[in-house]
Amino acid sequence: MDNSSQILTHLLTSPPKSSSPLTFSFLTPNQRGLTNALDLLSANSGKYTTSSPTPSTPAVEIAIFAAATESFSKKNLNSSVAQSLETYKHVIQSAKEHSPSSSPLRVRAYISVVLGCPFEGYDVSPHRVAEIATELLEMGADEIALGDTTGMGTAPRTKELLTCLRAAGVRNEDVAMHFHDTYGQALVNIAVALEHGIRVFDVSVGGLGGCPYSPGATGNVATEDVVYFLESLGMDTGVDLDAVADCGEWISKELGRANASTVGRAVLGARRRKQAEMSKKV
Amino acid sequence: MDNSSQILTHLLTSPPKSSSPLTFSFLTPNQRGLTNALDLLSANSGKYTTSSPTPSTPAVEIAIFAAATESFSKKNLNSSVAQSLETYKHVIQSAKEHSPSSSPLRVRAYISVVLGCPFEGYDVSPHRVAEIATELLEMGADEIALGDTTGMGTAPRTKELLTCLRAAGVRNEDVAMHFHDTYGQALVNIAVALEHGIRVFDVSVGGLGGCPYSPGATGNVATEDVVYFLESLGMDTGVDLDAVADCGEWISKELGRANASTVGRAVLGARRRKQAEMSKKV
Repeated sequence: MDNSSQILTHLLTSPPKSSSPLTFSFLTPNQRGLTNALDLLSANSGKYTTSSPTPSTPAVEIAIFAAATESFSKKNLNSSVAQSLETYKHVIQSAKEHSPSSSPLRVRAYISVVLGCPFEGYDVSPHRVAEIATELLEMGADEIALGDTTGMGTAPRTKELLTCLRAAGVRNEDVAMHFHDTYGQALVNIAVALEHGIRVFDVSVGGLGGCPYSPGATGNVATEDVVYFLESLGMDTGVDLDAVADCGEWISKELGRANASTVGRAVLGARRRKQAEMSKKV
Repeated sequence: MDNSSQILTHLLTSPPKSSSPLTFSFLTPNQRGLTNALDLLSANSGKYTTSSPTPSTPAVEIAIFAAATESFSKKNLNSSVAQSLETYKHVIQSAKEHSPSSSPLRVRAYISVVLGCPFEGYDVSPHRVAEIATELLEMGADEIALGDTTGMGTAPRTKELLTCLRAAGVRNEDVAMHFHDTYGQALVNIAVALEHGIRVFDVSVGGLGGCPYSPGATGNVATEDVVYFLESLGMDTGVDLDAVADCGEWISKELGRANASTVGRAVLGARRRKQAEMSKKV
């Protein structure tokens, strides 16, 4: 798999034609990662923006990954939660100070395993998550992405977590939810988060993804499934479900894996049956 | 596939050992089907009950299938909705009058395609469903099972349907919901129904099922998925999730199909990883 530098270089030098603005998150696990990002951006000034993307200019932001439990932090980052936060404090500060653009680089801070840890089980403290989120926001992070890395999140515990964050003073507009569908609860959990007022959800075409440090974790909840669900609630996602179902099928085939999107499979199946009927009539 | 008579004969003559009471629904599409059921029951008196089942005695009830749309009724039953209701009126009456047991035979009345029809689309009238449900209850049906045969049901439309039924005077305790997970919405729809006060949900181990008259429809929502979801809400299902995951895996293999239960696959995967770790330690 290409690393962040290779992907960003490609995006900046051969920008994909897209009618929808694109944002690339550059993973910066430490100061060196940030230096790589800043060097690349300086060398490509004018080819990206750090604020709202436009169809002709991708936006670039940086991404950092903290964890909600000590065990996961140790396995994934090789440091304690406190040590990782100390590192990120400097990374965020540098990113804001040395932004190669006129507006500061946006920072997206993930917190992994917020609703269940492969090593510590279901009992991840929502108070600890709220504490980490608050610290990251105070360091200057622009958005907190709460990762249910293991898919162990349930409706009541999603509600409890979001209630805890609200009590800690975290605003809904600073929070994104990142659900995995390993136990089929992603849409239910998204419904709970929607009711709470969250409006940003991470999704993945064809349900791609997973986590090398979370054995058995399946991919992120599929874009197709979430788009279908949100549209069913009367929300306008701006996403063409048929087109994204095609993308999901294509990328799944390219990677030689089964299409993990229930909605994708249903949409494509319905289309095939319709085409078969049409050709019978001709 | 064996028909209802063969399955019932087997259940009555070689009752499966089960710690949980078993109820068998005998499908009686018409008067002849009912006569078959009554003959079989008369010949096996004492081997079943028509009221609450016990671990040693299966209960038997009869099942009839109406449809919410004219097109589906024609394709599935070869009669209009009104004609099928006329037939069922006599079937229900006979079943109640000629019950071979001291207590009358219980009648479960399904209504198919209540939230979407393969021939008429999404716009199935909830008022028409309420009308059919009321008629069936007035004929003597004991329970109405509302079938989202196509899996096209969405959260708002599930709510609208149940609100319509309530307005028509149908009690929650007389309603069961029967969701298919074709578009991944089954748990979300069950959540809506739970909030409305419905407490009976049809499920199928390993997500088996489908409908020959609803092309592309996948199976019923998996038992494993619903048990996991209900337990996550703090409800006690009385079902052993590990055991039912084993059943789902076994029957899927027997039938040569992929295990369609997300929870089943996750539970079995977690168990395999745990066993692999244990054997490493030994």
